[in-house]
Formats: sequence, C-alpha cells, structure tokens
Amino acid sequence: MKKKAKKKTSSSRGQKTFVLKGTARKTKKQSGARLQYLPWEQVELEDINPLFQRQMIVGQQVMLARVLLKKGCIVPLHSHVNEQLTYILEGALKFWIDNQEIVVRAGQVLTIPPNMPHKAEALEDTVDLDIFHPPRADWLSKSDSYLRK
Amino acid sequence: MKKKAKKKTSSSRGQKTFVLKGTARKTKKQSGARLQYLPWEQVELEDINPLFQRQMIVGQQVMLARVLLKKGCIVPLHSHVNEQLTYILEGALKFWIDNQEIVVRAGQVLTIPPNMPHKAEALEDTVDLDIFHPPRADWLSKSDSYLRK
Repeated sequence: MKKKAKKKTSSSRGQKTFVLKGTARKTKKQSGARLQYLPWEQVELEDINPLFQRQMIVGQQVMLARVLLKKGCIVPLHSHVNEQLTYILEGALKFWIDNQEIVVRAGQVLTIPPNMPHKAEALEDTVDLDIFHPPRADWLSKSDSYLRK
Repeated sequence: MKKKAKKKTSSSRGQKTFVLKGTARKTKKQSGARLQYLPWEQVELEDINPLFQRQMIVGQQVMLARVLLKKGCIVPLHSHVNEQLTYILEGALKFWIDNQEIVVRAGQVLTIPPNMPHKAEALEDTVDLDIFHPPRADWLSKSDSYLRK
C-alpha cells in the first residue's frame, strides 16, 4: 500500500515539509488562453509577508511570477505538483533541495521537477523570476498560507 | 471536412505564414524531469542567423529560452502549438499579432496563445526571454528552418 503521507517526513533536517495540495487548476474554464500585453509596472504587486512580494502573469498552462525577496527571507520547505524554473535576475537565493545546498545567483537558473521538496533563503535582496507549469492555483487563490507567516 | 491548410492564409498582409509542425515533443521519454542548476554562461549560445542567437534551458513541460536579437532582426510570421510568454529584458520587439501592432519594451510581457500567428522585428538590440509550453521540439531538433534564413 502506498502512503502519500510519507512525503511529509522527507526532509533530512527534521523540518516540517508543506506538501501543498490544490496547486494545479482543475477546470479548463479558468484557464482560457488569450493574448495579453502586460508591462510589469501595471501588474499588481502583492505583499505576502514583510520580506516577500510578488507579481504574477498567468497564461493557459504557464505562469510567470516576479518575486521580490528581502535579505533573510525564508521560504519554508514545501513541494508542489507544479514544475518550476527559477531564474535569478538580481541577488542570490540559497536552496535546500534534493539533499544539496545550491546557491543560485544573478544570471543562474534552477529547474525544479514536480513534487521535489525545496526550501530557500535570500542571501541578498533578490529579484527572482519563477515559471510554473501549470499555474500555481494556491498563489492565484491566495490560499498559500505556508508563505504568509 | 476540416482543412488545416486554411491557416496558411490567415495573414491580412498577404505574407507567407509558417504554420510550424512538430513543435511539441511526442514521447515522454525525451522529457524526464530533473533538477538542473545552470548558469546562463554555461548554456550553449546558438548562432541561428547573423541577427539571432539563442540559449535554451529545458524542463519537462516548460522551456526557458534567452534570445539575443540585433536591431533589424525579423522573425517571420509563424505559429506553433506551444503557448509562449515573451518577457523583454532589454531593447524592444515590435509584434504583428492578432491584427495588432504591439511594441514590447524592456520590462514588458506578451502572452501568446497556442496557434496564434505572430511576426516580430527588433527595433533595438534586444534581450528577450521566451517561455514555451511544451518545449519547442523544432528548436531542440534544430529543424526550425523558418529562422535560419
């Protein structure tokens, strides 16, 4: 018998891992593809916590997020079904992922497979582009309580 | 009876439209998801034509391309099944798309639905991020002859 709950203990550091549910949109109705022309300066900037702000541009099967992290910001250990590509434009993020510590600096990219737990810490004030497939339903519905602490 | 070939005459300007076939990968075997840490400076820079260079980072269902276009570079009218998000980091691209002319400048994003014909011209030397879902099979196989002219 498979026990999905086992994933919750996958951290080697005894940390709580947020295995995020409901991160993929279930209905096609919500995800109609359309041409959009969007200057970032016209995209809502959300204050998620005092060290974490983000903007989102949402396509049909892909989301592009621009994430602003202040030095010291910690994104707790979590995983999601969404594939993620992270491209650091400015600053540096340290990742704990796949039993490795990887510092991703400006001009560098990390590709994170679906369901791979990861934690991150901003070593500097950072501008981060995150690409998700499919779009992060929990970010769109603002049900991402793991970030709002 | 449906006639897919009709799409070839969809341009209002009488231009030839390249309706690109084989732009989505057909087998799962080619697209295994894995953790990748990739500084752009270590990613191959391809010279596609004298005005068009690109780099590609390929995930399972998403590709991130960094495209360098010299002023005057023209990407001919074409369409593909892949959803596309274009984020201009530097410079400016003029698009002909959906019966509109849209100039996308640094700090601006265009979301292009699947199968929507588009042409582009670099108004300045430009650094462009293109996100595709699924990854562009024709770019990976280098069968993208519409760009190599």
